[in-house]
Amino acid sequence: MTARIIDGKAFAAGLRARLAARVPSFVEKTGRAPGLAVVLVGEDPASQVYVRSKHKATVEAGMQSFEHRLPAETSQQALLDLVAALNADDSVDGILVQLPLPPHIDDKAVLAAIDPAKDVDGFHVVNAGRLAVGEEALVPCTPLGSLMLLQDALGDLSGLHAVVIGRSNIVGKPMAQLLLQQSCTVTIAHSRTKDLPGIVRLADIVVAAVGRAEMVRGDWIKPGATVIDVGINRVPGAEPGKTKLVGDCAYDECAAVAGAITPVPGGVGPMTIACLLRNTLVAAHRRAGLSDPEGL
Amino acid sequence: MTARIIDGKAFAAGLRARLAARVPSFVEKTGRAPGLAVVLVGEDPASQVYVRSKHKATVEAGMQSFEHRLPAETSQQALLDLVAALNADDSVDGILVQLPLPPHIDDKAVLAAIDPAKDVDGFHVVNAGRLAVGEEALVPCTPLGSLMLLQDALGDLSGLHAVVIGRSNIVGKPMAQLLLQQSCTVTIAHSRTKDLPGIVRLADIVVAAVGRAEMVRGDWIKPGATVIDVGINRVPGAEPGKTKLVGDCAYDECAAVAGAITPVPGGVGPMTIACLLRNTLVAAHRRAGLSDPEGL
Repeated sequence: MTARIIDGKAFAAGLRARLAARVPSFVEKTGRAPGLAVVLVGEDPASQVYVRSKHKATVEAGMQSFEHRLPAETSQQALLDLVAALNADDSVDGILVQLPLPPHIDDKAVLAAIDPAKDVDGFHVVNAGRLAVGEEALVPCTPLGSLMLLQDALGDLSGLHAVVIGRSNIVGKPMAQLLLQQSCTVTIAHSRTKDLPGIVRLADIVVAAVGRAEMVRGDWIKPGATVIDVGINRVPGAEPGKTKLVGDCAYDECAAVAGAITPVPGGVGPMTIACLLRNTLVAAHRRAGLSDPEGL
Repeated sequence: MTARIIDGKAFAAGLRARLAARVPSFVEKTGRAPGLAVVLVGEDPASQVYVRSKHKATVEAGMQSFEHRLPAETSQQALLDLVAALNADDSVDGILVQLPLPPHIDDKAVLAAIDPAKDVDGFHVVNAGRLAVGEEALVPCTPLGSLMLLQDALGDLSGLHAVVIGRSNIVGKPMAQLLLQQSCTVTIAHSRTKDLPGIVRLADIVVAAVGRAEMVRGDWIKPGATVIDVGINRVPGAEPGKTKLVGDCAYDECAAVAGAITPVPGGVGPMTIACLLRNTLVAAHRRAGLSDPEGL
């Protein structure tokens, strides 16, 4: 069997087009475009790339992008003051504080200060709690995007056994909650799991989110299973001095056994920004008292 | 193999004695005893029994018990006003609104109105979120008590495979979070799970919380596994017109295979009130700015 490749790049492009198509009716109803504020503290090169990509995608979707770039020596209080101002600013529907923050700032305190209604990253404890108990939440973007790819590939997920490898607050745990909401049997595995290959072999759906290059091998995969590879790991490339990106799954091996698989890059990665825009549009609708946009 | 019986009644009595022993030092430091307010709306006979038991246990532990009995026709606003008054009352460390509430009252709105710092049932979304992300939370009593029995029976749970049957907000989901925090591999199974017996057979730890009498059979249990039976189901007894209580597990069958098992009654049941008192004592310490009492 050779797996069908789940084209996250194409799906994300389609989602972004559907989002952009919803913006004019929001503008018509409210007199303004949905707005996303991104806060970057310091000069981390990777963070600068992410923030630029987010800005570009936000503008392309017809939304307002507010960028706040602060020097690395910004005090925690100054950052909290900015978050408070953004919470109070009616033109801002989503607030994203780019992580990591400089070491003198307590990122938990900053994330806790964001209005949960504007928490488009879905990292606030109130959103984690709403997700856990099944109330209307803003859900972290990477697991949300992974779920969308799964539903597009498989349709109804009810009764399927999903094994999530990794238990982070950003991916593993919210992913497990989302799959449970879809009535999967859900197993959460991690570094302490005994016989991880044996556990993964049970899975109709494998979500790998551990950050270890090519850890999941082909003989761990049940024939026909769907593999979602959240990992993005930079490793030495074929030529000396060059690097390449690989996932948490050994792609060629897994693709030879799986029914469907996301590549790295081009799988889950592009869904993250698309879901950030989706969360911004949803937050804008909820804040304006409108029902959630459908068909996203 | 015949399973060791996990005596929840004895463990709960020990826990209550340890709690009672901590009360005098709290009184010495703060000038008052920890206080638990229980609110009962209407005349539901089972609820009346629970509330009486809670009152008695609270007083026996040397804590203050505040009972508020309201008529069934109490308006939602009147109940919310009472909750607000209890939130503001410094002598109240824990607030428990006995469920179910009469149908004209939105129980979600009432639970959401309780100060999370006084939410000794652990049902508030903020506490669900704190538990989910690993912050200091008040945790629902039944899964907390189940975890205590497991740790007492097994010691370190790290690396064990736990299968939780049931995905309620009150038991199954918080149980899974607690077991994950203890570094178990955790599987959450439920009514949509395919081959439930096969899934349960993987488990070193089985937690059954489905509310279906004797659903889990002996041949589902891996030899030597630990079985925690959260179910309390009333079924016809041996004599006509009599009833008896049974768990979600077929006790005799499971006890013949398991390494350890909780009986029904006398297993998890007695832990619930003991953990309610534990949460009240912990909430009192946190509200007073004291570190959590140890060794509970």
